[in-house]
Amino acid sequence: MNYNEKALEMHRKHKGKIEVTSKVALETRDDLSTAYTPGVAEPCRKIAANVEDVYTYTAKGNLVAVVSDGSAVLGLGNIGAEASIPVMEGKAILFKAFADVDAFPLCLATQDVDAIVETVRLAAPVFGGINLEDIASPRCVEVERKLKEILDIPVFHDDQHGTAVVVCAALINALKIVNKKIESVKIVINGAGSAGNAIARMLLDIGATNILSCDRQGILSRDIPQSNWVQDEIASLTNADCQKGDLTAAMNGADVFIGVSAKNVVSKEMVSSMNSDAIVFAMANPDPEIMPDLALEAGARIVGTGRSDFANQINNVLAFPGIFRGALDARASDINEAMKTAAVYAIAGLIPDAELSEEHIIPYALDKKIAIAVAKAVYDAAVSSGVSKL
Amino acid sequence: MNYNEKALEMHRKHKGKIEVTSKVALETRDDLSTAYTPGVAEPCRKIAANVEDVYTYTAKGNLVAVVSDGSAVLGLGNIGAEASIPVMEGKAILFKAFADVDAFPLCLATQDVDAIVETVRLAAPVFGGINLEDIASPRCVEVERKLKEILDIPVFHDDQHGTAVVVCAALINALKIVNKKIESVKIVINGAGSAGNAIARMLLDIGATNILSCDRQGILSRDIPQSNWVQDEIASLTNADCQKGDLTAAMNGADVFIGVSAKNVVSKEMVSSMNSDAIVFAMANPDPEIMPDLALEAGARIVGTGRSDFANQINNVLAFPGIFRGALDARASDINEAMKTAAVYAIAGLIPDAELSEEHIIPYALDKKIAIAVAKAVYDAAVSSGVSKL
Repeated sequence: MNYNEKALEMHRKHKGKIEVTSKVALETRDDLSTAYTPGVAEPCRKIAANVEDVYTYTAKGNLVAVVSDGSAVLGLGNIGAEASIPVMEGKAILFKAFADVDAFPLCLATQDVDAIVETVRLAAPVFGGINLEDIASPRCVEVERKLKEILDIPVFHDDQHGTAVVVCAALINALKIVNKKIESVKIVINGAGSAGNAIARMLLDIGATNILSCDRQGILSRDIPQSNWVQDEIASLTNADCQKGDLTAAMNGADVFIGVSAKNVVSKEMVSSMNSDAIVFAMANPDPEIMPDLALEAGARIVGTGRSDFANQINNVLAFPGIFRGALDARASDINEAMKTAAVYAIAGLIPDAELSEEHIIPYALDKKIAIAVAKAVYDAAVSSGVSKL
Repeated sequence: MNYNEKALEMHRKHKGKIEVTSKVALETRDDLSTAYTPGVAEPCRKIAANVEDVYTYTAKGNLVAVVSDGSAVLGLGNIGAEASIPVMEGKAILFKAFADVDAFPLCLATQDVDAIVETVRLAAPVFGGINLEDIASPRCVEVERKLKEILDIPVFHDDQHGTAVVVCAALINALKIVNKKIESVKIVINGAGSAGNAIARMLLDIGATNILSCDRQGILSRDIPQSNWVQDEIASLTNADCQKGDLTAAMNGADVFIGVSAKNVVSKEMVSSMNSDAIVFAMANPDPEIMPDLALEAGARIVGTGRSDFANQINNVLAFPGIFRGALDARASDINEAMKTAAVYAIAGLIPDAELSEEHIIPYALDKKIAIAVAKAVYDAAVSSGVSKL
């Protein structure tokens, strides 16, 4: 049975993946009087007197909303709120399994920026954090920036920043193996949406200087008009020389390829045209830009994908559980650049240099140590950057 | 230690009462590929192709939103969204414990009818039902009626209909003991909000003919203007003779008193003025309209309250878990009058006539048989009244 059939059977058997359970007993009359009426009135009174007590007496401090409008789900596109639920439930159980964060899917029946923002704002009292997911670009960037302004709890668009964190961690380790420096490598990012934008920004943060960003029209260049304001931002940050051309031209002589685009858009010839010791991260889901065996045959030295069935799984699950664990533990009002950069180095640092290899640049996704290390680094960065409310 | 202190300690220790857990294992790479990427894409595709498959592959069919705006929480009044969370989490764990319904609190940062309706509408894709809770009257009635029109999943305001169902079940059994008929008894309801309205309507449905409804201004009468449209509705349904007077006047000669109002508003003298074999349901929470010992001293034959520490606990927990279980199992598009009436008789019927007594008119709240019986009756009524979508 393949993954598709197994997934259908599993989802059908359990009717989805999440349930809402009680942390307290409800067996006796006494239990009922403590957890519900009349006892429950007392924590209500405390919170009414001091709203910060909501973190003491409710689940808020450990609850994250996984918010989607279903407009850019995996590689499936705009499939709507209902069809996005299996992914958001999946995200919720990953949060729980890897970082003991309680997460609940909010799959919204709107794809309007202001309606999404307003719905999340009104639903926010019960949540300690907001994880945005699978919202099309540039809408997702607008939604995230508006919510960050309005809310005093962390707001994080995982497709942007979770991806960027894990890509940067993987790249730091891959560059150690090929003995190249981030400052001097030529990097091509294919896919100029919100993930491509966040990856470019974070690469610049950790020292990259030479980035070309491509979409279906070819290399983005600041001297020609882009199709939306997110692409304008990317163009302004990359390709200083205003090079023109398609992805094939961009990849010629590149040291690093980072794909957040679509299946099969990279050929063996394109990989062969890259610099020696080429690094190829082909992360389109579920089918990568080029299959790992083909990329290796074409001369790539290190290959990563988003999938669990190949080596070097560059998967957001390495980042988001620990990032939210750290942010919630610090009662952070934000997840800022310092916290994300701390997560990058925490993930990269989990593999000692001596253990790095072409097939092991990033920790194994199921290693429970990852979230603990990331959470600690993010917590410390929240405190030192002044966003902890503890 | 009293309930207040125990409740604070318990809520603090566990940081609230709910958690979001996984129904599936997430230990191996294979688990990850089935529950998340790449396998999860397949249930998404199925739902995108046929939106009704959301009930097959997600948790929707068992998920209820417990929605409040924090405007009328227990007897505490308008304490706001955050301070209402302990009650809504309590409701959620009652749903789970009594009927294996997964329920999640949505405590909204607005008290505007249209904003509440729109937020619930946009959040509805993940939910199989909506339970409204602790929203002030008449706003709650407006919110409920609008949502019932818009949504194709059951919407139920528990403070109205849950209360009405349980009161009617208790009254049916109490009247058997005192050997009076619902058609001929004089009933006084104190509290002319949404609960009082729903109780009056359901009493009429099961045969009552002589109801007086009171608020702080006294007996509602259709020939004088009321303070809002819900009270206009109540007045139009009760007090056919347009009697005037205060609660004391209303209770004189009454057979049944039903309080959904405030503590200590009923004196011993008022109970003594009632007809022989008086039935007193003093359900203000946490402190009843009159304490049971006083009511009994004053001559009442049967006394019920909302509390678990006295006999005859007339508590919504007898109704809402089974009502939603039945509605969800039938995939009902509504919770209609037939379903609510079915719940009334199912609850009343759980005590055989031979076991009825002054101190045992209603099943014990923690009896797990109740929800099963209610669910079956509600399911059958959903099917026979044509609202089941199965």
